[in-house]
Amino acid sequence: MDKSVDVLVVGAGTAGLVAARDLVRSGSEVLVLEARDRVGGRLLNAALPGGSPIEVGGQWVGPTQHRVMALIEELGLRTYPTHTAGRHIAELGGSRSEYTGRIPRVNPLTLLDIAQTQLRLDRSARKVARTEPWEYELADSLDAQTFDTWLRNHAHTAGGRAFFRLITEAVFSTGPEDMSALWANFYIGAAGGVDALINVAEGAQQDRVVGGSQAIALAMAQELGDRIVLNSPVTDIDWDDSGVRVRADGVTVRARRAVIAVPPPLVARIRFAPGLPGDRDQLVQRMPMGRVIKVNVAYDEPFWRAEGWSGQANSDRRALGTVFDNTPSAGGPGVLVGFLEGRHADTGARLSLADRRALVLEDLAGYFGPRARTPIDYIEKDWAEEEYSRGCYGAFTTPGTLTRFGPALRRPIGSLHWAGTETATRWPGYIDGAAESGHRAAEEINSALTAAAADK
Amino acid sequence: MDKSVDVLVVGAGTAGLVAARDLVRSGSEVLVLEARDRVGGRLLNAALPGGSPIEVGGQWVGPTQHRVMALIEELGLRTYPTHTAGRHIAELGGSRSEYTGRIPRVNPLTLLDIAQTQLRLDRSARKVARTEPWEYELADSLDAQTFDTWLRNHAHTAGGRAFFRLITEAVFSTGPEDMSALWANFYIGAAGGVDALINVAEGAQQDRVVGGSQAIALAMAQELGDRIVLNSPVTDIDWDDSGVRVRADGVTVRARRAVIAVPPPLVARIRFAPGLPGDRDQLVQRMPMGRVIKVNVAYDEPFWRAEGWSGQANSDRRALGTVFDNTPSAGGPGVLVGFLEGRHADTGARLSLADRRALVLEDLAGYFGPRARTPIDYIEKDWAEEEYSRGCYGAFTTPGTLTRFGPALRRPIGSLHWAGTETATRWPGYIDGAAESGHRAAEEINSALTAAAADK
Repeated sequence: MDKSVDVLVVGAGTAGLVAARDLVRSGSEVLVLEARDRVGGRLLNAALPGGSPIEVGGQWVGPTQHRVMALIEELGLRTYPTHTAGRHIAELGGSRSEYTGRIPRVNPLTLLDIAQTQLRLDRSARKVARTEPWEYELADSLDAQTFDTWLRNHAHTAGGRAFFRLITEAVFSTGPEDMSALWANFYIGAAGGVDALINVAEGAQQDRVVGGSQAIALAMAQELGDRIVLNSPVTDIDWDDSGVRVRADGVTVRARRAVIAVPPPLVARIRFAPGLPGDRDQLVQRMPMGRVIKVNVAYDEPFWRAEGWSGQANSDRRALGTVFDNTPSAGGPGVLVGFLEGRHADTGARLSLADRRALVLEDLAGYFGPRARTPIDYIEKDWAEEEYSRGCYGAFTTPGTLTRFGPALRRPIGSLHWAGTETATRWPGYIDGAAESGHRAAEEINSALTAAAADK
Repeated sequence: MDKSVDVLVVGAGTAGLVAARDLVRSGSEVLVLEARDRVGGRLLNAALPGGSPIEVGGQWVGPTQHRVMALIEELGLRTYPTHTAGRHIAELGGSRSEYTGRIPRVNPLTLLDIAQTQLRLDRSARKVARTEPWEYELADSLDAQTFDTWLRNHAHTAGGRAFFRLITEAVFSTGPEDMSALWANFYIGAAGGVDALINVAEGAQQDRVVGGSQAIALAMAQELGDRIVLNSPVTDIDWDDSGVRVRADGVTVRARRAVIAVPPPLVARIRFAPGLPGDRDQLVQRMPMGRVIKVNVAYDEPFWRAEGWSGQANSDRRALGTVFDNTPSAGGPGVLVGFLEGRHADTGARLSLADRRALVLEDLAGYFGPRARTPIDYIEKDWAEEEYSRGCYGAFTTPGTLTRFGPALRRPIGSLHWAGTETATRWPGYIDGAAESGHRAAEEINSALTAAAADK
């Protein structure tokens, strides 16, 4: 197949689909090449026993995520609140507490340490996110250290440090030692603060999409119809200022502009001719993906609710550090969703399926009692094994990267434009950030094509 | 072209050529696929006015680099000492000093700080390098911080910190903030200490190869003859336990084993089927290349020698932080070689050629006076722009990487074996480390093929 269009989009995740949709609406002829046999990227539904959809990838949306909420409404989809009624479980600093509301019961010194550290973090993060992070006055100092170093210098109790490690893993799916402190600050600030990231009610885990979050991508794909070509991993992009020639398995497409809407480490795996400038290439060498194995465990009913538990549990001593009730609104089986994140994902991935399943069920039994050992289904997804994601939830920058190469993150190169949640200025790493990036890339291209038309 | 051999080697740099040579000697049929139109990888000669070769890539060898020294001897090549006679120049902490021997004249407090920090660093590095670095008892703590954080906690004077930043850039071509402190310690320990890395006499810059260092690769290539196929960038490797099928532009090769001898970020750009395990993929996402622009500036004569200078100069306030006399032993023009490293390479790369040349000449004039402004030739190489290196001198690991994924660095996967200087246990990042890795990969394959033959 040989085609010629106005704009070629690489990747049918949220970012690519949003960009394609905007461009079609502005009158461009658009083609989307997707490597997989499906759309959605890091959004993916699986089926529970009985058939109702369950999310094995990104799933939640929440307040201040204006772009994804608008998208959901436009597409005629609906949301429903994450189940939160009941007592949450927190295992922190050697003791277990059950609590309602937002604050686990821990000893007052630890609580004070957490509160003070969070205050400092929120204040710093707000300043970083107010501008391009590499332009923040303390950017060099923050980018010269890992987030672990930052936390050690600000949290002074073992419990406080354990808390921030736990939430770092939950939010970034990597340890605080893996990331630049500048990236952590930027990411937190761009979401509106620590609470916005970790809360269910009033936070990033507040709402779910009826039909599973992949419905967002599926609805856009339906609109775009045969403008999307599946099973077409892009291997080569020849480009100059006036256009691109893109090759995928068996497909060659010429276009005036291209949107590259895949995660940074996968951008590095496309062969560009001419090769990308050193700054851009060094950038994508230094933005690895987080790592998570997401497990949905289905039971004949949400038995924990009857015991008064919400299903929300966290632990600084278990591999399965974060758990939520993930039962769909439509009913059917009760579902607990848990996450093996960062180093826990490494360890988990090295086990056999049977051993990994046993580890997960043992952790769930530790939280919710022996009934957790007898599920009716166990659905797991190791995103680092996925050839066309190679990690989740998103990429992060290693120390020294944002200050050296940050400006290359969004800057178009010739006819090439960059999208993907990692390029967002608000809620990077979330569906909302992906949507922002798609809109922004489409706007760049509309401006460029309009300017080109005016020149004629 | 369709071929079938015992062993396929990807990459005709030192590592790949050494492996190929060893395997041929053990009786294997070998083919080497090289992406470029030349062999040598990060070793490359250019021509000075008059035609004598000058190294624009890796160039020096030194004591304790037993593998490369043996290789040079075997190949019938010779070495000669780097020119060191005369006064060296050091601009550190706001003042300029001229000195002979190893120790620049700086204020005693700074000197004490440097000495104490180096002592601690050497002691720690020796312990890290004594075993697999991820097994060192303090590995987690070192890997959780950048080398910059480590240096700030150990060096207490501005001059001391400036000194270690300068030598980090000179050795690693990246800032201390970019790297894991564990990697820095490992690398230093694996070379035998700080002095071994930074010294000319008795150190890694002691000797040069007659004819330029690429002669090492060229001599091996001559032995291997038509077993090397140039202009064949490998794009796809299908593999299982019993063999590989490797595709390059227009070439398909089947083999029982493969040696992948390209830098880690470039391994990530080969499409493996099945995809590599998560651990291995995450590793190569987190080993970016350093960045350096190497400049050789030729003059009608080595004028600095007449003034009593050695040509060796360092500065913590110039872009061109490290300079040596690089005049070939055969005579001809006098040559100064300088390095724009890390952030200085970023800045340099964003300039036009004319502005970059002016910057370099201004720095050389700052060291050696106005005659430096009138060269007869200016030869530069920005290795980050090279599609098949994408940086130099070598890759490093970002924080958290060695402890999480270090064991995946050398471990074979099915019929795939890993070589390249970054996989060495001694002198990683050097020609010597590349040679070690090639020998080791060949040994692995010889053992595997012998075992397979015994099974029959």
